[in-house]
Amino acid sequence: MSITVVGSLAYDAVKTPFGQRERMLGGAATHFALAASFFDTVRPVGPVGGDFADADLEVLRTRGTVTDDVEVIADGKTFFWAGEYGWDLNSRETLDTQLNVFETFVPKLSPAAQACDVLFLANIQPELQAQILDAVDGPAFTALDSMNLWIDIARDALVGVIERVDCLILNDAELRQLTGKPNLVAAAREILGWGPTAVVAKQGEYGAALITAASFFALPAFPLETVVDPTGAGDTFAGGFVGSVAQHLAGGVTDEVLCRAMAYGTALASFNVEEFGTERVTRLTADEIHERVSALHGFGRFTLQTPVLTGDRS
Amino acid sequence: MSITVVGSLAYDAVKTPFGQRERMLGGAATHFALAASFFDTVRPVGPVGGDFADADLEVLRTRGTVTDDVEVIADGKTFFWAGEYGWDLNSRETLDTQLNVFETFVPKLSPAAQACDVLFLANIQPELQAQILDAVDGPAFTALDSMNLWIDIARDALVGVIERVDCLILNDAELRQLTGKPNLVAAAREILGWGPTAVVAKQGEYGAALITAASFFALPAFPLETVVDPTGAGDTFAGGFVGSVAQHLAGGVTDEVLCRAMAYGTALASFNVEEFGTERVTRLTADEIHERVSALHGFGRFTLQTPVLTGDRS
Repeated sequence: MSITVVGSLAYDAVKTPFGQRERMLGGAATHFALAASFFDTVRPVGPVGGDFADADLEVLRTRGTVTDDVEVIADGKTFFWAGEYGWDLNSRETLDTQLNVFETFVPKLSPAAQACDVLFLANIQPELQAQILDAVDGPAFTALDSMNLWIDIARDALVGVIERVDCLILNDAELRQLTGKPNLVAAAREILGWGPTAVVAKQGEYGAALITAASFFALPAFPLETVVDPTGAGDTFAGGFVGSVAQHLAGGVTDEVLCRAMAYGTALASFNVEEFGTERVTRLTADEIHERVSALHGFGRFTLQTPVLTGDRS
Repeated sequence: MSITVVGSLAYDAVKTPFGQRERMLGGAATHFALAASFFDTVRPVGPVGGDFADADLEVLRTRGTVTDDVEVIADGKTFFWAGEYGWDLNSRETLDTQLNVFETFVPKLSPAAQACDVLFLANIQPELQAQILDAVDGPAFTALDSMNLWIDIARDALVGVIERVDCLILNDAELRQLTGKPNLVAAAREILGWGPTAVVAKQGEYGAALITAASFFALPAFPLETVVDPTGAGDTFAGGFVGSVAQHLAGGVTDEVLCRAMAYGTALASFNVEEFGTERVTRLTADEIHERVSALHGFGRFTLQTPVLTGDRS
């Protein structure tokens, strides 16, 4: 079994109230791979420049991730993003985006990447996502992320690829924007009508919600007293979520499988934000993940004990 | 057993994307009482003007609520609030606030209101909240709400009353503002150090979280495809939460009691937002509440099935 992820491999400059990094390993495919590598063999697909350090390629290879599909463009520069977060980390400003090698990126998948069991299309142009869907050999589960930019400038193409995947993973504000529906449940139901069988709404510090035809499921973000850098949290969530699904394909992607995957995504994301960039998840252990998933198991639990309400007596 | 609530009884003018009301029954004590009345006898304490309609007093008496402590100031006018909500109902603008009879309000509690088992101090001046704490005969459980205004202009007095109650119920942004801590868990822990044994963070459409010394608990808002008017949702939540606690005082206010109360608060609030003002909760039935609490029981549940993560093999 294997997972192919197509998306950015990047260098990030990040400033938060708790510190800053001038140039750290980042990118959606990177964060996704570091999380999903706990569950299965991951193959990231994406370009880097000649400036991409060997040490960072080694980080990408953590837990067996195969980097054969990372295309090194020797005379190009790696995608670069710079941003700064506000006081409570709920707002962030993009200070700089340099597409660099991504400007002319044409995805080429190796046979092994094409033969994946699970495909994650991280946030890139919808047209590229469509090309990749054309290129893979019918994976058992496909999930897709996107962003407000593509809703603004390439909505039709985006809707076209959403129609072709099993699961859409998007920020809740983007789900509203995409559908024009202010209500999250209504927005998710609309998208379920387009084709996907599951919609995951990422809600930042409030956690995430899953909506399928038959289920609503939600988990809070894992409660942390110290959050240092949210960069990559969404992609780390996706890596834990999609990775967990990949481990349970044999019985079909049931709601039970998806709900459990939400817990793994939530746990993985909670580690990501504890330190800058990839620092925490790179050295994360399986025991640490199990511990947080077990804790999450109790966070929404209460004992039902039907009281006699006044209305019952009438 | 009985619950005393001190807070506003009001008329509201509300405009949402789904309609508007020029003058509808509202106020924190009103919404609280309508919800809490399912659980116990409620005594709202607060002033109204000579313009307060008998029909609205009747609404307040729904499910046995005792209005002996509603002080009618014949030559005064009832508190009035006007507001308008944005597209996704997450933002609202206050267009008008007329304190009217609340400007000179001095709470006077009847012996029955003083002898309450549970006290809820809705959002009013902290000095008045302190006077009421002085006046009651040691209720078994006390909870308090407040708002950003009092954090801005009367923080010391507010902290003084928070130190004296069992439970603080506040919007999450206000918890951050009150403590100066951007992190919700850290903010709640700080407040637990002041005296309360429980902190409830209201998170609007994202639900609510409960933090005690030993527990973290969270529930999403009940998923609705149609939300019409969020006015009073927080006080309706408080009514369900505090009401449920009131029903289980005999065994002590354990974390189990508080977690279950979160579910009742969440369920009650979800009905409140389905229609304008008090319209939905006034005609709500106990069966409808039970049904939503049962559904909430499943929203954060997943089956633990420890997979073999890559890190486990090393």
